[in-house]
Amino acid sequence: MLDDEQPTTTPAHRPARNPGSQSALRSRNQQRITQQLLKGGPSTQAELARSTGLSTATISNIVKSMAAAELVTLTPVTSSGRRAMSVRYNGDSAIAAGIDFGRTHVRVVLANTGYHVLAEEEAPLPRGHEAAEGIQTASRLLDKLLRKAGISRSQLIGAGAGIPGPIDSRSGKVIRGAILPEWVGINLHSELQKALEIPVFVDNDANLGALAQLTWGDMGNALNLMFIKIGTGIGSGLILGGHLFHGSFGVTGEIGHVTIDEHGMICRCGNRGCLETVASTATMVELLSRGSEHPISTADILRQADAGDPATLRVLDDAGMAIGRALANVANLISPDVIVIGGPLTELGELFLAPIRRGLLRHAVPIIGESIGLKMSQLTSRAEALGAAALVFQNEPSSIIS
Amino acid sequence: MLDDEQPTTTPAHRPARNPGSQSALRSRNQQRITQQLLKGGPSTQAELARSTGLSTATISNIVKSMAAAELVTLTPVTSSGRRAMSVRYNGDSAIAAGIDFGRTHVRVVLANTGYHVLAEEEAPLPRGHEAAEGIQTASRLLDKLLRKAGISRSQLIGAGAGIPGPIDSRSGKVIRGAILPEWVGINLHSELQKALEIPVFVDNDANLGALAQLTWGDMGNALNLMFIKIGTGIGSGLILGGHLFHGSFGVTGEIGHVTIDEHGMICRCGNRGCLETVASTATMVELLSRGSEHPISTADILRQADAGDPATLRVLDDAGMAIGRALANVANLISPDVIVIGGPLTELGELFLAPIRRGLLRHAVPIIGESIGLKMSQLTSRAEALGAAALVFQNEPSSIIS
Repeated sequence: MLDDEQPTTTPAHRPARNPGSQSALRSRNQQRITQQLLKGGPSTQAELARSTGLSTATISNIVKSMAAAELVTLTPVTSSGRRAMSVRYNGDSAIAAGIDFGRTHVRVVLANTGYHVLAEEEAPLPRGHEAAEGIQTASRLLDKLLRKAGISRSQLIGAGAGIPGPIDSRSGKVIRGAILPEWVGINLHSELQKALEIPVFVDNDANLGALAQLTWGDMGNALNLMFIKIGTGIGSGLILGGHLFHGSFGVTGEIGHVTIDEHGMICRCGNRGCLETVASTATMVELLSRGSEHPISTADILRQADAGDPATLRVLDDAGMAIGRALANVANLISPDVIVIGGPLTELGELFLAPIRRGLLRHAVPIIGESIGLKMSQLTSRAEALGAAALVFQNEPSSIIS
Repeated sequence: MLDDEQPTTTPAHRPARNPGSQSALRSRNQQRITQQLLKGGPSTQAELARSTGLSTATISNIVKSMAAAELVTLTPVTSSGRRAMSVRYNGDSAIAAGIDFGRTHVRVVLANTGYHVLAEEEAPLPRGHEAAEGIQTASRLLDKLLRKAGISRSQLIGAGAGIPGPIDSRSGKVIRGAILPEWVGINLHSELQKALEIPVFVDNDANLGALAQLTWGDMGNALNLMFIKIGTGIGSGLILGGHLFHGSFGVTGEIGHVTIDEHGMICRCGNRGCLETVASTATMVELLSRGSEHPISTADILRQADAGDPATLRVLDDAGMAIGRALANVANLISPDVIVIGGPLTELGELFLAPIRRGLLRHAVPIIGESIGLKMSQLTSRAEALGAAALVFQNEPSSIIS
């Protein structure tokens, strides 16, 4: 997926200010399509019709002339089992950075408005690092990528960033419950803006994962989507009615703290038997390390599952069923079109998806369970950084379409 | 709350078509305020500012001149502990009917755009009645109310209707899972439209209950609200981002089928240990009727709780804790501003609210639990019919504002 093409800023690639012979209506419709391609990423013509409200005939007409003017590129794809044309905006007019802060890493991507990655890289961070160190490392990594891609920082229209923990939108601060206790109380938005000196947009990593499925992934048709990330912690992001959902103060999707076992283990949130205490990779590692001298890693879980180790398979099965049960609660409540699973275990594919599906179908209201799509994310560990870049295009369309 | 004032249709009460000396902008802003008062019901000026996006100065200015022209009425109220003025549209220009179908009753209200009830009445329906009988009874009751209020059927802009069960928006049909098995497979919308010969809007009763809290209740400030109805069944309606949320195909809010006890009783949905098997009034009645010759009623539960009967108090406490736990799952996921409890047990007030609050705070992520408002509905058994009338004003603003 990495794309090495050098970004250019040819004005010819921008929508014309004076459409000349084209009617004002046609120009407005073209702008709507462009805006949707920026916000939603590459889309089929059917998806564009649905999201813009324009007729398929109008879409087809305008897309044809945009393709002739090299404003968009058409690529054959398969969408819901049918052959279709994916429309991608040839937008090298604006570039955004996406930053994904993790417990032991930071990943930075540079992407253009055509949803092409220009450069990306990950750097390690020490466990228990302070926020300042994470931000400094991200800033240095960003500079390195800019040099590599031959872009200046002033050419960026902004940076998106995600952290694995809740941000209280009332105060802008990272709050307790984060996987990164050293970051609690930090205003990521203002600290990062100070360091990078460009517009910054921040969100929870699971929300960015959900946004990435819509924009970079193949879920462009979903109006209501849930992304659940199974890792050291468990969190989720919601797209409702086509938009990221933030609830009353920015903290949502805390599915990791659904009570699964009322008499279960004490969770870091202070409750008992939360999903995280049953199905996080941290719990799996703990269960499978008992009695062995060296604790195993998540990579070992993948390896052992592949080799058919019975204990590993049982741990994955139990965790999957519990995750499915928690997802059934969500499904019963909001009945999304699709639920996408993310995190390091997605590589296991059907092996891990099967028990999740079993738990979902067992506990969901039948008609809801049958109607939901359940998939592994195809974006692997890149989802959050890609979603962070998309967050910039979502928030800054005015600085892109001149 | 019943208002006996006769409806008039004085054209003077409609917003002027030619604003004359007022600027076009002012006229557009006045229209926005009118539209919001129709959709949202009586609101404070602060609520109007928030929902229209206009400045408080603009709102205050226009409301003042609307009040002078007798287009709106101002009433002092207390909102979030502060004194404020509630603005009510003097809208007798259009009238809607609201119909609430229950297992053993149907209730009809007539309301005008000023959110005044002109007439309302309830009629009994036999347990296990067919849909046709319910619709016929509703139609007869509506005619009776119209005569009483001196209104002709053609003066109605439409009727809203709710039933206690899910409606699949793909087929328009009532689906299995409803408290009314005899209604399954019926297209309520088309059957009712055929019977009444006016525009009809239908929804699940819990959704209408949620809408009623926003429009007829005192929750005008809430962008994200959950209404949960505890009765023979348990269902909920969601307002997300200020609008009723319908998920991918209309079936949402099925909180009655959250698994509370994995090894619990078999539920009518086919799963085990659902919230309904633990906390519905049907379960309470069953638990408290054991050993006695005549089964008790919901009214008996209210009476026995009032008299301090220990068994009744224990049943209410256990049910409340389970409801609170289920609400905590919802809160963790979407963190609404407020959760409103409805159904026949609301009369118990704090006695039933206390165990629900305890369950919620015990199982919610602390910062989410602390941030949520939890209230009993003040609309009693009228909520669904009132919400059904509001549904008409939500869907037909164009036929109201000329």
